[in-house]
Amino acid sequence: MPGKKICIVGSGNWGSVIAKIVGVNAHRLQYIDDRVTMYVYEEMIDGQKLTEIINTTHENVKYLPGHKLPPNVVAVPDLVEAAADADFLVFVVPHQFVRNLCNTLVGKIKPTAIAISLIKGFDIAEGGGIELISNVINRSLKVPVAVLMGANLAGEVAKENFCETTIGCADKKVSLALKEIFEADYFRVVCVEDVETVEICGALKNIVACAAGFCDGLQLGDNTKAAVIRLGLMEMVQFVKTFYANCKLATFLESCGVADLITTCYGGRNRMVSEAFVTTGKSIEDLEREKLNGQKLQGPITAHEVNYMLAARKMEDKFPLFTAVDQICKRKIEPKQLIELLKNHPVHQTAVLKAHL
Amino acid sequence: MPGKKICIVGSGNWGSVIAKIVGVNAHRLQYIDDRVTMYVYEEMIDGQKLTEIINTTHENVKYLPGHKLPPNVVAVPDLVEAAADADFLVFVVPHQFVRNLCNTLVGKIKPTAIAISLIKGFDIAEGGGIELISNVINRSLKVPVAVLMGANLAGEVAKENFCETTIGCADKKVSLALKEIFEADYFRVVCVEDVETVEICGALKNIVACAAGFCDGLQLGDNTKAAVIRLGLMEMVQFVKTFYANCKLATFLESCGVADLITTCYGGRNRMVSEAFVTTGKSIEDLEREKLNGQKLQGPITAHEVNYMLAARKMEDKFPLFTAVDQICKRKIEPKQLIELLKNHPVHQTAVLKAHL
Repeated sequence: MPGKKICIVGSGNWGSVIAKIVGVNAHRLQYIDDRVTMYVYEEMIDGQKLTEIINTTHENVKYLPGHKLPPNVVAVPDLVEAAADADFLVFVVPHQFVRNLCNTLVGKIKPTAIAISLIKGFDIAEGGGIELISNVINRSLKVPVAVLMGANLAGEVAKENFCETTIGCADKKVSLALKEIFEADYFRVVCVEDVETVEICGALKNIVACAAGFCDGLQLGDNTKAAVIRLGLMEMVQFVKTFYANCKLATFLESCGVADLITTCYGGRNRMVSEAFVTTGKSIEDLEREKLNGQKLQGPITAHEVNYMLAARKMEDKFPLFTAVDQICKRKIEPKQLIELLKNHPVHQTAVLKAHL
Repeated sequence: MPGKKICIVGSGNWGSVIAKIVGVNAHRLQYIDDRVTMYVYEEMIDGQKLTEIINTTHENVKYLPGHKLPPNVVAVPDLVEAAADADFLVFVVPHQFVRNLCNTLVGKIKPTAIAISLIKGFDIAEGGGIELISNVINRSLKVPVAVLMGANLAGEVAKENFCETTIGCADKKVSLALKEIFEADYFRVVCVEDVETVEICGALKNIVACAAGFCDGLQLGDNTKAAVIRLGLMEMVQFVKTFYANCKLATFLESCGVADLITTCYGGRNRMVSEAFVTTGKSIEDLEREKLNGQKLQGPITAHEVNYMLAARKMEDKFPLFTAVDQICKRKIEPKQLIELLKNHPVHQTAVLKAHL
């Protein structure tokens, strides 16, 4: 009986690291087909096709130089060819490409396929507000979608430094398979059932990281920064509770929750640019040009989208941190006003958390 | 009708900061007596009694220089005199002094008094293992005991930098009073009911901080450190679940939980000395002499006490991080073995957390 087939949709830095782990596991696991396809957007590197380089040298010289991929990972430049036979579709591309890739795949994949998204951030819903990437994939391809998120800086995972990740998957049986497909002895997987919480944590943490960066810029000290991060976590909980039913508090203690939040608020570019926003007085746009080569910072965009939703429902007063970050990035208020706004946080008023959970 | 009386038992750095907040509130609140007594262990400063200096200059020149106490805070060198009329007894002394102070107070306090402990760390039970300070006070004085813990570096609270704290108090009515007594606009209080969780977090975090320090010393990177802190948090949850009934997961998201854990694992002396333990190869004792003026580091002591309990119950395999920290401090294993031991952590085996919570 032929094994289940895996296709990695994406071949950037994180996609290549994941292809390395998945390739090793596909080779090892009886019920998985040895050959793992990796969709690679074709480009020319020194006159040679990137797919040819990957398939001969087993190295993604552009996005993961210095690390070998297992030889059973095969680069394929045609998306439909790469994905057509797959039982597991692993989406790991920048989020702005998801809709187009899915459109290309409509009607071309196995109807029994299972998708798993490693894509962080929200998509923008029609008419404004946020939309989960897993929903975009699910609506387009009509297959179940799991997610994988955690405190996983790609470069450190590539070096096989120990870390953890979280898989959100509604189906327990599928969870077990996904754990085997993605786990390595240095990359430990915990599976939970509330997919949405796992995915939302990965996007909202960037708003909190901006607030943490403002604290650093204002030199407010360790107590204040810890309080700001914690209040951000409380708003993440409150947000999921408000807009998505059935989330479990325990999920926020997984790698996708506190662990990813901590690394993002102490390292990470959202923190770094937000600190510079305070200390230099420059705009977010100027700092993106200067420090990120023009790439957009995720935190301010997410803060804008989230506050669009909150404003439409007149719920801004329940999320003072999310709201303040949006207003600070737009220079409607001063960074130092963040703290004044947090002094009257709803969680300090009464036992709000207890009542809700 | 005379107001309720408050006595602060202790006048060190943290005690003096708390006396400042409580003094202001006592003056403001109708139902609290203006006069707050502060028990001060008498010592001579440049030929003058410390209590006299405090009562004339309103500054604790030895333990909180540069900050004025409210004039209604009165230093009293006699413990029984300070505490005899008190309705609220605020314990804020190094934990090794608690038993003696309580012994002095037996039969000398109001039987209706309420105690609140700000003391971090465990006491050692007779025959080994740990004992909560709140239990020590309760057994000795036969009064209910609440606790106050959080990410509260005393120096930053003294400067009135914004932060949060957690009060654990089993009685909801008493909670409301304690919130009014301890809250300031820069010092926000959240009350929860499971006293033991609040208190235990404040002690166990120091073990986790040692593990975080070992990671820093080994230069394992951000992913690994985040995973180690999270696994430490999971063991804190598991420890409270195992040894103390009725804890709520939400309490670990309060200031006493994640917030205090974060600051301790990124700043703090347990982290710092543990990093040096790896990088210098010196013993904990040598580093205490060198870096802490001979003061004992809390993390290794707590790890020893906790592992005494775990070993007696043959439960070490359920707490690999707590166990590894104890063995590393005692040089029974190498620091780098920490990570190998965490790769088979019980939370990665199955959905342990979900089953328990």
